[in-house]
Amino acid sequence: MPSTRLHVALIGAGRMAQTHAAVLATLPGVRVRAVCDPREAAARALAEPLGAAAVTEAARVFDDPHVDAVLITTPTPTHAALVTRAAEAGKHVFVEKPVAATLEEAERVVAAVARAGVACQVGFQRRFDPAYVEAKRLVDAGELGALEGFRGVSRDPAPPPLAFLRSSGGLMVDLGIHDLDTARFFVGEVREVYAVGSVQVEPRLKEYGLFDTAVATLRFDNGALGTLELGLRTAYGYDVRAEILGERGRLHLEMDSRLHLRRYDAAGGSFVRPRGFEERFFDAYRGELLTFFACLRAGQPVSPDAADATKSLQLALAAQRSLETGSAVAVATFREGVAA
Amino acid sequence: MPSTRLHVALIGAGRMAQTHAAVLATLPGVRVRAVCDPREAAARALAEPLGAAAVTEAARVFDDPHVDAVLITTPTPTHAALVTRAAEAGKHVFVEKPVAATLEEAERVVAAVARAGVACQVGFQRRFDPAYVEAKRLVDAGELGALEGFRGVSRDPAPPPLAFLRSSGGLMVDLGIHDLDTARFFVGEVREVYAVGSVQVEPRLKEYGLFDTAVATLRFDNGALGTLELGLRTAYGYDVRAEILGERGRLHLEMDSRLHLRRYDAAGGSFVRPRGFEERFFDAYRGELLTFFACLRAGQPVSPDAADATKSLQLALAAQRSLETGSAVAVATFREGVAA
Amino acid sequence: MPSTRLHVALIGAGRMAQTHAAVLATLPGVRVRAVCDPREAAARALAEPLGAAAVTEAARVFDDPHVDAVLITTPTPTHAALVTRAAEAGKHVFVEKPVAATLEEAERVVAAVARAGVACQVGFQRRFDPAYVEAKRLVDAGELGALEGFRGVSRDPAPPPLAFLRSSGGLMVDLGIHDLDTARFFVGEVREVYAVGSVQVEPRLKEYGLFDTAVATLRFDNGALGTLELGLRTAYGYDVRAEILGERGRLHLEMDSRLHLRRYDAAGGSFVRPRGFEERFFDAYRGELLTFFACLRAGQPVSPDAADATKSLQLALAAQRSLETGSAVAVATFREGVAA
Amino acid sequence: MPSTRLHVALIGAGRMAQTHAAVLATLPGVRVRAVCDPREAAARALAEPLGAAAVTEAARVFDDPHVDAVLITTPTPTHAALVTRAAEAGKHVFVEKPVAATLEEAERVVAAVARAGVACQVGFQRRFDPAYVEAKRLVDAGELGALEGFRGVSRDPAPPPLAFLRSSGGLMVDLGIHDLDTARFFVGEVREVYAVGSVQVEPRLKEYGLFDTAVATLRFDNGALGTLELGLRTAYGYDVRAEILGERGRLHLEMDSRLHLRRYDAAGGSFVRPRGFEERFFDAYRGELLTFFACLRAGQPVSPDAADATKSLQLALAAQRSLETGSAVAVATFREGVAA
Repeated sequence: MPSTRLHVALIGAGRMAQTHAAVLATLPGVRVRAVCDPREAAARALAEPLGAAAVTEAARVFDDPHVDAVLITTPTPTHAALVTRAAEAGKHVFVEKPVAATLEEAERVVAAVARAGVACQVGFQRRFDPAYVEAKRLVDAGELGALEGFRGVSRDPAPPPLAFLRSSGGLMVDLGIHDLDTARFFVGEVREVYAVGSVQVEPRLKEYGLFDTAVATLRFDNGALGTLELGLRTAYGYDVRAEILGERGRLHLEMDSRLHLRRYDAAGGSFVRPRGFEERFFDAYRGELLTFFACLRAGQPVSPDAADATKSLQLALAAQRSLETGSAVAVATFREGVAA
Repeated sequence: MPSTRLHVALIGAGRMAQTHAAVLATLPGVRVRAVCDPREAAARALAEPLGAAAVTEAARVFDDPHVDAVLITTPTPTHAALVTRAAEAGKHVFVEKPVAATLEEAERVVAAVARAGVACQVGFQRRFDPAYVEAKRLVDAGELGALEGFRGVSRDPAPPPLAFLRSSGGLMVDLGIHDLDTARFFVGEVREVYAVGSVQVEPRLKEYGLFDTAVATLRFDNGALGTLELGLRTAYGYDVRAEILGERGRLHLEMDSRLHLRRYDAAGGSFVRPRGFEERFFDAYRGELLTFFACLRAGQPVSPDAADATKSLQLALAAQRSLETGSAVAVATFREGVAA
Repeated sequence: MPSTRLHVALIGAGRMAQTHAAVLATLPGVRVRAVCDPREAAARALAEPLGAAAVTEAARVFDDPHVDAVLITTPTPTHAALVTRAAEAGKHVFVEKPVAATLEEAERVVAAVARAGVACQVGFQRRFDPAYVEAKRLVDAGELGALEGFRGVSRDPAPPPLAFLRSSGGLMVDLGIHDLDTARFFVGEVREVYAVGSVQVEPRLKEYGLFDTAVATLRFDNGALGTLELGLRTAYGYDVRAEILGERGRLHLEMDSRLHLRRYDAAGGSFVRPRGFEERFFDAYRGELLTFFACLRAGQPVSPDAADATKSLQLALAAQRSLETGSAVAVATFREGVAA
Repeated sequence: MPSTRLHVALIGAGRMAQTHAAVLATLPGVRVRAVCDPREAAARALAEPLGAAAVTEAARVFDDPHVDAVLITTPTPTHAALVTRAAEAGKHVFVEKPVAATLEEAERVVAAVARAGVACQVGFQRRFDPAYVEAKRLVDAGELGALEGFRGVSRDPAPPPLAFLRSSGGLMVDLGIHDLDTARFFVGEVREVYAVGSVQVEPRLKEYGLFDTAVATLRFDNGALGTLELGLRTAYGYDVRAEILGERGRLHLEMDSRLHLRRYDAAGGSFVRPRGFEERFFDAYRGELLTFFACLRAGQPVSPDAADATKSLQLALAAQRSLETGSAVAVATFREGVAA
């Protein structure tokens, strides 16, 4: 398929880039042309097995006329500028969540992407997990009737380094945004959020006004109610769940057991659980890139796009504000820096 | 065992009385002597198969020297007066939750029971479900380490009659109190509760400022965080779940499948779910009465007693206040009629 | 209900008698009048908490005009004579499986019971487990279409004492008869059985030509095929399963988890399994006696009766023969002592 | 990675070739150079999206010096000749099961492969399913202690065309060989097999002495006992299961639910089941080819190789003989055409 081969560049060579690179190596018709990271060794380590060039300057990627699309996995504060530059260079963009660090930046990204006429998909991979895809089909087909409730749970096995936590925008923006995006994906927009947090895992977070554990209530525009539970440490592996309630039923999304294997011994019955996001969502990471490139080839719009992701960001920022202030926050009118 | 045979009277002949009567018929060494209900036909219908007398005046029960204990399942507003009279008559008491309609009443009940030196157990049957018993054992044995989180879910298949809902004290007091008691049972006292509600099932509730659906966040004294989800209608049966999180693990309490049977056909795999509380908690209803009578016989204190149940009531009233006002409520200092 | 109170006597005071006594203590309208066992201490231990008399001679029971029914749980070789005497004394009979030790004895029991006009129910309690009851309902309602297959599994956690094993009639007669009865209950008569066995648990069995482990194939009259797996030792608890296959679906009967509780910790997810037959089939033991007494009261035929149980015995004896000879055995024409 | 890029040719362009082609398209470092099938249109349909040549003569593949390895998915009777020619041409071979149609042919294949010094892996993909891999690890680590039992189940949703069934070697050779290979993989060699069959799905099979349903017992060299259940039609999807029993526990391999999604509605709880082997074993098909090519690159022996697969074939042929004759068959001495 030489005529449809797409050339991509990775910008960022960290953990998420590695996850995406593992997928890219298996995608027919996609070739990684370059990996860009200021840490040259990291760029090279990722580039070599892919037969790609390792570069340290993003300009090298943007100026390369053979690059069709870029995958941006750099730290959140750099997202807005990089997406904008990519769009201006006419490159299609796949960018990790959140689309930008602030609402204002996100809106500028939306505008830049629209101006350039490029595609910009944001990395909410859960939407591409086979179970979420089927759940969405059922919801859209009306199998649940009117939607009435939602539950989202995300618990990571272990907290990231303190430095990362300090720059990540907070628990709601870094972790909770996945569940909040899922809530929007299935049920619709959230009108009001109330969150409370605690520090139970990493005591040093207290100095920074940050939290490693949080719960929240959600009130949706359509009247549905929801809850959210977040944590940065479990003994028992990766714990991501979602429930969607409707007048006619309930859908329950959970990878409880990792393998199709149960073990029985003197302790009773047991099963192995997923230990991290790569294990839980490998199919989803694959699905989101497969879909991204399929849309590029077919000239169809990507989803979730920057505008959609901006709404998830606004919701996450509102939730983060509630977490920090102890007050319910109205989402639609929430602007950072302005009291809710 | 004539010497240890206990004679009990049922006060109230409604649905809960029927549930208890089904248990009492199977308890060796316990004899139902009378069923008391102002609706004579109801009293008689329950009394006859038990070989008991049907009476319409509670005084008949309290004045009967052969009655050792009474089981009170009358409407909540009558609890305090009946428990007090029973205690003053020297009868042991088993009373349905909530122990009283108001905090003040509940405290008077606690005092009356203490004065009389009788036992007073309150009907939080979930504590006696075999799974809850085992979970409690694990928690108390330190298997979860420090406790960090809780989730409670109670969804009834169908709402009770409007008249009942109007007099039940609200969703938190009538239904949520079970989950809040469970939260206390496993994790400890709740410091602050925030609840939001909606009307999605029974539109007429709006006129009365009541809700049929609610979610809440809980902040415990020990720093743990929790969520609560309540609803009065599901398409899929009775849905009661609890989760307890600790630094070393998580316990998940749920009767997902009613029978030890899975069915596979053209639609895939399926299983039958419990349809109501009797089905889900039959063993628990049996367990709480077995334990109540065993404690009476052994002269040991019953649990949960009126003082314990008063704390669950205070928490439920605080949650109900939050639901109605939209503000977080501090539980320990919450008094009805006083702004939180 | 004085008029419908039934008086029963237990003949045999061993483990099964204890299981039944625990049930009898909870059955309204049933009174245990006597417990009979040549070991007087055993009889007394069981009788006392039931308020019953302890006797050592069965004649005392048969001659007592107040005894309506007897529950026989003595060793298998005594079944035929005791059931016959009970029937001749006009007592209704509930007898543990197998109904007799040999086919000839079983047929004489059937005749004696018919002559006396009493009820005789045999203790295949699995038929009364709530899951089996529902499965039977589905099968009879045609939900599976034509029946095409069966699987039965019975694995005990630990072997009984060697002395018991030597007198029990062999693995197929003592343990496998439950699965073979289940096979007949759901799918119909078995035409041919082939079994192979091994000694993996209790090496001393080899001296007696006995087995502690066996598998078998079943060919049913209607063309369906089945398998059977038996064992006398597991590390992981009590393992009884059944599967029924039809052209339109499959039913799977298994108590995988004992409690409605899952535990998650550093080892993954786990659950508690049932450890013995009392735990797995408590509801079934209760159900079979409830039904037995309800039939007696209503004057309706009991089931499985002696004739039905004789067919299960014939099948078990045929399977035992196959196990011992290594040849397939045709069931319908199988007579003990005659080559298949 | 140009230096390690492996060039492969597909011989056969049917359903299994399509399954493998889907995997090959995602394997980095592997290039499909040609697809060979006498049906030119089929070859072309498969070749084109892979950017490969379509040829109709296998000689074209064997004579091509750039072809490193061939994947043979042609009908079973052609396996032996094609593998032999490939080996003689110095090509590594991946061939679908069974390795050959007869035991004699299989032994000649083993010799030819050994002479040529090429690798020859046979397509028992289940060994590469992640759950089977983990189960094998546990068994090899001694977690089950001594192995005592096995159960294999394979039920296809719908029978293949009659023409295929007639030429497939029979139910044990075409379908059962997977379970029998699994039995050998986990527990070891089988000493004796006894099988019974029936025709319940495709009545025309009776004319040809073939069966669509079978059950069998297995006696292993180490004393373990096993069962096998096979069928060619289910209403409820693809049903492949395996159980391994040991003195210290049991492993249960089953994909009961296809998606990590449960649905609850008025019918109760339900889940989606896998519908076919591609869905159930996609990871396994990927795993076996990944491993095959990794072994080629590393110069390590492949597994299961032709000699290993020959033992599975011998066992399957012995089981087929038992199915057809109604007698138990001793496996080690079984030779086709010679009475067991």
